[in-house]
Amino acid sequence: MSDFDNDFQIDWERERRTGIPEAVLCAFKSAAQIEAILKAAGEADRRLLFTRLEPSVFASLGEESRAALANYDPVSRTAWCGGTPAEPSIRPGIGIVAAGTSDLPVATEAARTLEFLGFQSPVIADVGVAGLWRLMRRLDDIRSYRVVIAVAGMEGALFSVLAGLTDAPVIAVPASVGYGVSAGGMAALHSALASCAPGILTVNIDNGFGAAVAAVKMINKM
Amino acid sequence: MSDFDNDFQIDWERERRTGIPEAVLCAFKSAAQIEAILKAAGEADRRLLFTRLEPSVFASLGEESRAALANYDPVSRTAWCGGTPAEPSIRPGIGIVAAGTSDLPVATEAARTLEFLGFQSPVIADVGVAGLWRLMRRLDDIRSYRVVIAVAGMEGALFSVLAGLTDAPVIAVPASVGYGVSAGGMAALHSALASCAPGILTVNIDNGFGAAVAAVKMINKM
Amino acid sequence: MSDFDNDFQIDWERERRTGIPEAVLCAFKSAAQIEAILKAAGEADRRLLFTRLEPSVFASLGEESRAALANYDPVSRTAWCGGTPAEPSIRPGIGIVAAGTSDLPVATEAARTLEFLGFQSPVIADVGVAGLWRLMRRLDDIRSYRVVIAVAGMEGALFSVLAGLTDAPVIAVPASVGYGVSAGGMAALHSALASCAPGILTVNIDNGFGAAVAAVKMINKM
Amino acid sequence: MSDFDNDFQIDWERERRTGIPEAVLCAFKSAAQIEAILKAAGEADRRLLFTRLEPSVFASLGEESRAALANYDPVSRTAWCGGTPAEPSIRPGIGIVAAGTSDLPVATEAARTLEFLGFQSPVIADVGVAGLWRLMRRLDDIRSYRVVIAVAGMEGALFSVLAGLTDAPVIAVPASVGYGVSAGGMAALHSALASCAPGILTVNIDNGFGAAVAAVKMINKM
Amino acid sequence: MSDFDNDFQIDWERERRTGIPEAVLCAFKSAAQIEAILKAAGEADRRLLFTRLEPSVFASLGEESRAALANYDPVSRTAWCGGTPAEPSIRPGIGIVAAGTSDLPVATEAARTLEFLGFQSPVIADVGVAGLWRLMRRLDDIRSYRVVIAVAGMEGALFSVLAGLTDAPVIAVPASVGYGVSAGGMAALHSALASCAPGILTVNIDNGFGAAVAAVKMINKM
Amino acid sequence: MSDFDNDFQIDWERERRTGIPEAVLCAFKSAAQIEAILKAAGEADRRLLFTRLEPSVFASLGEESRAALANYDPVSRTAWCGGTPAEPSIRPGIGIVAAGTSDLPVATEAARTLEFLGFQSPVIADVGVAGLWRLMRRLDDIRSYRVVIAVAGMEGALFSVLAGLTDAPVIAVPASVGYGVSAGGMAALHSALASCAPGILTVNIDNGFGAAVAAVKMINKM
Amino acid sequence: MSDFDNDFQIDWERERRTGIPEAVLCAFKSAAQIEAILKAAGEADRRLLFTRLEPSVFASLGEESRAALANYDPVSRTAWCGGTPAEPSIRPGIGIVAAGTSDLPVATEAARTLEFLGFQSPVIADVGVAGLWRLMRRLDDIRSYRVVIAVAGMEGALFSVLAGLTDAPVIAVPASVGYGVSAGGMAALHSALASCAPGILTVNIDNGFGAAVAAVKMINKM
Amino acid sequence: MSDFDNDFQIDWERERRTGIPEAVLCAFKSAAQIEAILKAAGEADRRLLFTRLEPSVFASLGEESRAALANYDPVSRTAWCGGTPAEPSIRPGIGIVAAGTSDLPVATEAARTLEFLGFQSPVIADVGVAGLWRLMRRLDDIRSYRVVIAVAGMEGALFSVLAGLTDAPVIAVPASVGYGVSAGGMAALHSALASCAPGILTVNIDNGFGAAVAAVKMINKM
Repeated sequence: MSDFDNDFQIDWERERRTGIPEAVLCAFKSAAQIEAILKAAGEADRRLLFTRLEPSVFASLGEESRAALANYDPVSRTAWCGGTPAEPSIRPGIGIVAAGTSDLPVATEAARTLEFLGFQSPVIADVGVAGLWRLMRRLDDIRSYRVVIAVAGMEGALFSVLAGLTDAPVIAVPASVGYGVSAGGMAALHSALASCAPGILTVNIDNGFGAAVAAVKMINKM
Repeated sequence: MSDFDNDFQIDWERERRTGIPEAVLCAFKSAAQIEAILKAAGEADRRLLFTRLEPSVFASLGEESRAALANYDPVSRTAWCGGTPAEPSIRPGIGIVAAGTSDLPVATEAARTLEFLGFQSPVIADVGVAGLWRLMRRLDDIRSYRVVIAVAGMEGALFSVLAGLTDAPVIAVPASVGYGVSAGGMAALHSALASCAPGILTVNIDNGFGAAVAAVKMINKM
Repeated sequence: MSDFDNDFQIDWERERRTGIPEAVLCAFKSAAQIEAILKAAGEADRRLLFTRLEPSVFASLGEESRAALANYDPVSRTAWCGGTPAEPSIRPGIGIVAAGTSDLPVATEAARTLEFLGFQSPVIADVGVAGLWRLMRRLDDIRSYRVVIAVAGMEGALFSVLAGLTDAPVIAVPASVGYGVSAGGMAALHSALASCAPGILTVNIDNGFGAAVAAVKMINKM
Repeated sequence: MSDFDNDFQIDWERERRTGIPEAVLCAFKSAAQIEAILKAAGEADRRLLFTRLEPSVFASLGEESRAALANYDPVSRTAWCGGTPAEPSIRPGIGIVAAGTSDLPVATEAARTLEFLGFQSPVIADVGVAGLWRLMRRLDDIRSYRVVIAVAGMEGALFSVLAGLTDAPVIAVPASVGYGVSAGGMAALHSALASCAPGILTVNIDNGFGAAVAAVKMINKM
Repeated sequence: MSDFDNDFQIDWERERRTGIPEAVLCAFKSAAQIEAILKAAGEADRRLLFTRLEPSVFASLGEESRAALANYDPVSRTAWCGGTPAEPSIRPGIGIVAAGTSDLPVATEAARTLEFLGFQSPVIADVGVAGLWRLMRRLDDIRSYRVVIAVAGMEGALFSVLAGLTDAPVIAVPASVGYGVSAGGMAALHSALASCAPGILTVNIDNGFGAAVAAVKMINKM
Repeated sequence: MSDFDNDFQIDWERERRTGIPEAVLCAFKSAAQIEAILKAAGEADRRLLFTRLEPSVFASLGEESRAALANYDPVSRTAWCGGTPAEPSIRPGIGIVAAGTSDLPVATEAARTLEFLGFQSPVIADVGVAGLWRLMRRLDDIRSYRVVIAVAGMEGALFSVLAGLTDAPVIAVPASVGYGVSAGGMAALHSALASCAPGILTVNIDNGFGAAVAAVKMINKM
Repeated sequence: MSDFDNDFQIDWERERRTGIPEAVLCAFKSAAQIEAILKAAGEADRRLLFTRLEPSVFASLGEESRAALANYDPVSRTAWCGGTPAEPSIRPGIGIVAAGTSDLPVATEAARTLEFLGFQSPVIADVGVAGLWRLMRRLDDIRSYRVVIAVAGMEGALFSVLAGLTDAPVIAVPASVGYGVSAGGMAALHSALASCAPGILTVNIDNGFGAAVAAVKMINKM
Repeated sequence: MSDFDNDFQIDWERERRTGIPEAVLCAFKSAAQIEAILKAAGEADRRLLFTRLEPSVFASLGEESRAALANYDPVSRTAWCGGTPAEPSIRPGIGIVAAGTSDLPVATEAARTLEFLGFQSPVIADVGVAGLWRLMRRLDDIRSYRVVIAVAGMEGALFSVLAGLTDAPVIAVPASVGYGVSAGGMAALHSALASCAPGILTVNIDNGFGAAVAAVKMINKM
């Protein structure tokens, strides 16, 4: 590898400016780049979240790196270094709703990001609208949150039904779960954006991380 | 106009083969072509349905033609010549559900096509899922039909909710009602096709006519 | 795996509401999730259909799971637990037509779903319109069904020709068979939706399961 | 007009369920439909917001209707009936930022919706990133809000720059301002969704109304 | 108008190089540009074909120009100056097939271009595959041509059926006739390109002119 | 494998109807299906062309099958059974032009198909327009053919330049050679269809087989 | 009109930062907004370029405004206030090439922008590659420029041919000239981006202004 | 491999015509084709650049070939034969800016191409706009170049910010770094083309090579 690739600049000041520390999207980075960033975080004694860290890439990291990222979770493909917020400071208020079991990787990316940021957020799963009673049964629970993150693939009808039933802001995370016209998550994304229920907010497909960050920004301002 | 454009061949035998008489899509035809077809139907003493007959085009037809199409309806943009089925032979069994008032042009195209084919089909309107109680209130009514035609634009979440609540086959008609990502009806179409509720059947965007024809084909075989 | 992923809720009441029991789309689920659902079905003593169960995933299931899904078929990638409907209760009335041998995985997904739901439905294959005589030769057979499921990829011209020749409703299943402009099945889907032959009903690309469910909903109401 | 089009059901309970009263998207409705809805609101003595009410449609309404919608604003194409919130109850906290003068119709739709909902929200215009100093000059002002609504067309770079500079949640409203690859607003939409600055939330293209509703839902929960 | 727009260079030598004289696509040209080109043709004593000459543009030309283009046909929107090939030199061999009456503007553009190039080519209309007997009835006629130009919009199934029934090369001209997924002619274009019947050749949507030119190039080499 | 997949119907009569024998697109077929078709061809004592037969699939066929397809060529991924046309009957007249070495798999698919159909057709390679002299140097050769098949990926500018320089019909085969906006061959396809040089005929992306069949249909009629 | 729309901030410092003064894209602005900006420029005694100023909008401006923009050109839809650079300071070095007469509105937008910025740039028109000799005849002229702006619609093959023949950088401006697959200019844009001739630089469709600005930035640094 | 694939024609004269020697895009070529081209370069005693040479393909080359391409760099996937320009002739003036570490493969392709062409061009990395201070800190450095190549994926906001801050021409290289709506690099491409900051020039997604060539063409003319 050439000498160009070590010239990275972690934005340590981001937390002060925006309330949220920087995170590392591993998807397009080499193992060597990830390890260099991890080492810099250690030297600066900073907490740092790693997302989209595929199991095969995690396995290819050196032993020391894997130890520093010991809380790695293969379903959400997330890990962080520098410790987890201690119990007393953990905050409530953000709920996560997932249409089906296939949406859990994205929903847990949101949950893990929230954990890293000091929030305890349960995932309410399998409430797709094809069986409306499943959603209705959990409605009181869902209505208790100040912000709701909703994850759905396929046609994303959950977003509209949910937003019509709760007074909390709903952050829609379209999931790349589907085939044919819904392959890649575009159908669910468009459902979230075009919903007849006003007040839905959308992030990129599969972006559980971004939904969690936005939810925390809201709570921080509340 | 050249001499090419009068060489049309109405498929009078279609009714015998498929159970449904031919109809004329006026959208891409000139007034002269429409009048020539209408005249041929009169000479053959046949009933013939005209769809997508814009008010301005209807107004440009000759007096005799307008008289032959006296039942013209500007909302659905439909008309037919040759008489309407008499009361005793009118059949029930097909219901039409429309998400909002903006979907009524498409929903009434279906209703008028059904009327031409001998069916009495009410339109249940304004049952969009942003206010779920509106749909629930009409559910017993909707469940009484053997086939349900559902019309929705925007994100088309109605299709999934409806199909999860009824045992009748649901024919989804995406409507070109929306803007941004739902402009043209593509988002609603993809929602119908990608629905997590199995058993939804889809026709082209704004194709109330096609939905009606398919519903009648079902009933004829029942 | 985290503890989020076991919070699934099978919609056992769906059959009562919609006439069709729930099924499990395996494509985006882990082997562990599939086995947990299978176990729940066993404990509830329920029949449950699994679709898009790839041979490699099936092979990775535990021995007990594979025994419970002993009727696994690798062409259609389907299996079910809880037994097959007994002979006397098996119903006719639904025919399946496939344009070419490449369409058989999708066509057999429909056939297997119908078998699970108590229908005996033959697959009439290799009747693509490039050799029209092949379709004509089978036309009497095709016309004998109350509902016809048609599977075609490439340009999907079969849908239009078929719908012009039969009075039964035609459910078009576009297949992801093709390359260039027809890669992924979008050209066949658009042909089904835009057909000049009215009365064609469409499901998502490769959705043989959905076509079968819709056909049964029709027959149940007939 | 047929008798179908009067069967509308205003969701008067929506405010109780979601904190936001229903509004009427006039874009796909006829003048007769709009007047009927307006009359129903008058009879129910309710406040009701009308969006996308084009000047030509407004001008075609009857005199009484125009009087009831006397606060009509042609730039934002909005009006409401039933009175405006009185001074003491007007709330602050939501700021609106517009990249250029071409984005003002969308930005004012948001501002007017907020006014209807009881908020006073200034529009900070002409802060596009091609001249970064314009944004920097207004940064203290922008940072004083608890929620920021940002409107931008073309390539939508404003969203990313803004989100990196403020700790408030940013709601991006892509505007259909542009030509070539940015015609229709899709490029700006994708910039908002794909931003490297985490925590941006997006609504549909030109949906100033939806952004305002979401912002109020946030504030209501704060 | 500035002085730039008169610097055109008609490619008079094209006929020698390619067998086909240059033609003028009027769609994106001003009336002044069209008149300047027409005048240049007159001065050079050349025959020149004008396509996509809308009736309103033709009407806005000066009297002298309209006289020079006296054979203007508003259905095909074509005209030419410099005379028509005399009877004895007119050649046969190219047939034109149109699926429906809506396809006649495109079909007649091909027929008129062929007339300009010295061919007599009949248009066989209304042979869409929804009523297959109409095509079968004309099959002997169609099979008598050395090249067949086929025009169809909607789903374009005609192309595949036709190519499976004749040994002549088939040039498919997708027509922008349709709505929803077939709006603009893209569905028909993809059907032509993806056909299961090999040997179909395609030109751009609505390009009756290009199809005629290609057919003549074939005949010239036969 | 179920019993459905052996119900194929080779269209042996296609040669009589269209002048071209049927061929087998192997891309979406299993090895078992290919072998069954090959066996049927052997029993019927027919020649049969196999296209898109990937090396790995060919290697997985049984020894007998591989012997029957001994002329397998891995670059074009083609093979045929039943013998090659003998020297005296081999016909000239069709030339193949390829923009670059990356286009050779598609160009050789055309050349091999032509060989199967009794034509000797050289491939003139590496004549992309970025170095126009390469094309000019071969122009006399290219102009000697009665039909020219041109293969190009990337932006496909070769098609326009070639069609402006020769009086033979040009069949454009867009190749899926490129990345970014030209990934998949769509940019080259659109260049062929939208060319300013009239008379270009297009087939699907990578469809060297279809181009060869169309060229032979032309020659057969010449 | 509300009071929001006058809060514009012209970036007068842009020229110092980037070498190019700000310009006003009129396409999405109201006449009132344009007049307000024009007045501000007058008060600041600044030169200011207006692009995409449609004739109908220009005609609707007040008399004073039209006088200030007396050099308005309806073909390029451009005007500027504050005077034109005097002869001695006018610079050469940038050439403009247009494929056809239909491309002249875009080509003259570039030429007029260059004139505003102090450059004399001729437009070499009608050199499309369908008649290659037209381009070759002008090649010495074209090769004399230090930067070449090339404008082409349809399939945009001109870009590749030109870039292979000159050592100057080529700025491609795709024009929205075409129909079917080239409608809107996307095919030409993709040809420019995917060209096999390296070194082509692209701007947005129809963006003659942007091409001129980029060319001047180059010259300024030379 | 057949005998077609050796008929390549390296355009050795390209350097004389365009100032830039030909290069070989390895992505769609076989190892045998690459080795044949390399051998021809050796025999002609020419320098030749190879791009998109994947590590696995490089490893599969013969020992002699690998020795001739000993300067192979796996990050940029580039190599060249025939020696590197000597120190005294190396030129400055072109700077490369990369938004993040994920963009380094594309940025180094540009840097390596420039090295091959005799330029020393540093890569300034990790200056994405989410942390604007990182870009500002390097602004003096960036402003010192005569041409700036900017590489960014995701939403590509860097292009607009950069172009508003420097007077050098900016060549934008969109990188295929992103997921969901930015997968493949299309969102970044559209941001570059639609930028509100005039004077940005764009090349194809991931085309670091093309950006370098264009930059050298500029410098050569300066």
